[in-house]
Amino acid sequence: MPSSISLEALEALDLDPAFALHRGGKLEVRSTVPVRNADDLALAYTPGVARVCSAIAEKPELAKDYTWISNVVAVVSDGTAVLGLGDIGPAAAMPVMEGKALLFKQFAGVDAVPICLDCTDVDELVETVVRLAPSFGGINLEDISAPRCFEVEARLREILDIPVFHDDQHGTAIVALAALKNAARLTGRSLGDLRAVVAGAGASGIAVSRILLNAGIGDIAVADSKGIIHQGRDGLNPVKEALARDSNRAGLHGSTEQALAGADVFIGLSGSTVSEEAIASMASGSIVFALSNPTPEVRPEIARKYAQVVATGRSDFPNQINNVLAFPGVFRGALDVRATTITENMKVAAAEALAGVVGDDDLSADYVIPSPFDERVAPAVIAAVSEQARADGVARL
Amino acid sequence: MPSSISLEALEALDLDPAFALHRGGKLEVRSTVPVRNADDLALAYTPGVARVCSAIAEKPELAKDYTWISNVVAVVSDGTAVLGLGDIGPAAAMPVMEGKALLFKQFAGVDAVPICLDCTDVDELVETVVRLAPSFGGINLEDISAPRCFEVEARLREILDIPVFHDDQHGTAIVALAALKNAARLTGRSLGDLRAVVAGAGASGIAVSRILLNAGIGDIAVADSKGIIHQGRDGLNPVKEALARDSNRAGLHGSTEQALAGADVFIGLSGSTVSEEAIASMASGSIVFALSNPTPEVRPEIARKYAQVVATGRSDFPNQINNVLAFPGVFRGALDVRATTITENMKVAAAEALAGVVGDDDLSADYVIPSPFDERVAPAVIAAVSEQARADGVARL
Repeated sequence: MPSSISLEALEALDLDPAFALHRGGKLEVRSTVPVRNADDLALAYTPGVARVCSAIAEKPELAKDYTWISNVVAVVSDGTAVLGLGDIGPAAAMPVMEGKALLFKQFAGVDAVPICLDCTDVDELVETVVRLAPSFGGINLEDISAPRCFEVEARLREILDIPVFHDDQHGTAIVALAALKNAARLTGRSLGDLRAVVAGAGASGIAVSRILLNAGIGDIAVADSKGIIHQGRDGLNPVKEALARDSNRAGLHGSTEQALAGADVFIGLSGSTVSEEAIASMASGSIVFALSNPTPEVRPEIARKYAQVVATGRSDFPNQINNVLAFPGVFRGALDVRATTITENMKVAAAEALAGVVGDDDLSADYVIPSPFDERVAPAVIAAVSEQARADGVARL
Repeated sequence: MPSSISLEALEALDLDPAFALHRGGKLEVRSTVPVRNADDLALAYTPGVARVCSAIAEKPELAKDYTWISNVVAVVSDGTAVLGLGDIGPAAAMPVMEGKALLFKQFAGVDAVPICLDCTDVDELVETVVRLAPSFGGINLEDISAPRCFEVEARLREILDIPVFHDDQHGTAIVALAALKNAARLTGRSLGDLRAVVAGAGASGIAVSRILLNAGIGDIAVADSKGIIHQGRDGLNPVKEALARDSNRAGLHGSTEQALAGADVFIGLSGSTVSEEAIASMASGSIVFALSNPTPEVRPEIARKYAQVVATGRSDFPNQINNVLAFPGVFRGALDVRATTITENMKVAAAEALAGVVGDDDLSADYVIPSPFDERVAPAVIAAVSEQARADGVARL
């Protein structure tokens, strides 16, 4: 983008099909009930609506039956970590949040409202979402920069009795775990056999690491821009300090590339690059997930020279790790049973269901994760999440 | 409503057609663009969406062209003054806010999102709406109790550069002014000829009084529960004190009923009652708007014994003063020209346009205001509001 857009450049925008498609936005709100005449109006609005309001005032749970909140998720962002673009602010974040909302509807029939907030302070974000919460059945946090996103999500989960889910963390984590389970299955190993290196300790890097630890990965070392996170490293924030305790049993120090020597799995969520030599130094039968967008940490055609399975975040290569495979079904499954929260088990169950969509006969190096347009995905994830919510005792239905 | 609802009562709810209609709520969010395959996804979501986000980050006004915000109004309530039900809280207010949202769409194609907030403090309401504002093209405040509603609206109008409109005040005021103009026209008088008494100094009573003063009513006396508001009365809040200065040039004291002797117009927005004797004491050719719901201040069939024109807030009597005649077109007209605010002139223009829908040939005692389903209403209001916004220099298009 030029530093200031000329009139010609503006006129040229609509020649870009993305701009043409975005003109006027991508969403609308519609009535699900008819309002053709005064009789309809007297039921949907005054005086009929007053009886419904009175009943909810008497018994607040009835709001879940007689309003749309049971089916509505707020897609909340402060615009500080949007795609690979960074801190572009709430207005510029809106096209992404509209996009999430339409994917919620498209893939799982969830109504979603994009809410871009003009505040970035953790306390302000938390109190604002808490005040909004009576209007929604769930909160999908989106594109809030680390480490604030961890505290915002943790505090909202503590305060609210509806699902709160930071998609950049957990959506990515669920899909990465599903793909890794299938990659392990393809190569005849279990997660417990694998030693992984994760490059990137932002929202998605931390969450992927956490879900892999919960799912029983053999060992995992996580690197930020200063190298592998280990106990005793100076200046770790509380989230990284906790990760240092729970990961890196091998006690690795140094760079991502050093840690890759002999490793089974590389997961890149860093925006940086990894050399061909480092990929070549991994164990045989290695698995490489180079997930940064738009530029993977290593070109997939290079990685494929050494690795048995390669995945990226891009739709133009095989095995796209796309969190649209997770978030619509996760929320649908949670809303369907009116879950009070989304547990770690529910995330792992979603990943297992997603992995299970790829049958043994179909599983291959270029097909460890299904397409977003595979119609088996959402029903599988929804069923698994609802069932696990009941098993975990967090379902209200 | 019983103090606690039994299971039988709950099962019986769906026998009430209002509850049956409300089950699952009344709204949905839909995509306006296709997402059939990976190519569509690559435009509506990543990577295509990133180009749109970057352009908006560069030039924030582009958000109005390339997101849905130019067409979206937040219907914001704290649930403290819902219909005639009072302070029933945010969850119980939701059916009304959903109803407003569907009327916005039905009557003017405006997308509206119901936002019921879990806070009632003025500072908290203001700061929350300010934080939400990047996501919306306008703010419709709803069912916030007086006098907080005045300060909330005034502060938001000051801070935000998008239309902020408290419908309980201004929607009612616009429609009442339109009906009164037509009632005066029917009886061969101008507004300047009329001396009015307004019972009720809550949100709608204050706003109706203000718009009548702006439109040039002859004189107006406003009563609250302590009687007619006049200069020097003890304990007036700032809003009433300002009204005392601007109204009641006749210097009336005492009760509404005392003030009605010889008055031309009665407008009831109080929830209380007015005796037949008081109505009988009004000037000949009087005009009675008994607008409280569901119980008008005086039964319309009683009022009609004395008054030339009678209006109520109910759909089962002639001349329903229903703010759905105003708010959809007011916002549509403001959004269409991207008005930065809604001026007093724009409200009066809306009222004049609404009054003008009733032609001289159709005008009668039982038809001083059109039906909400009259398809001429919204286009007339929209055109008048857009035009006045341009004339007032608050239009950006």
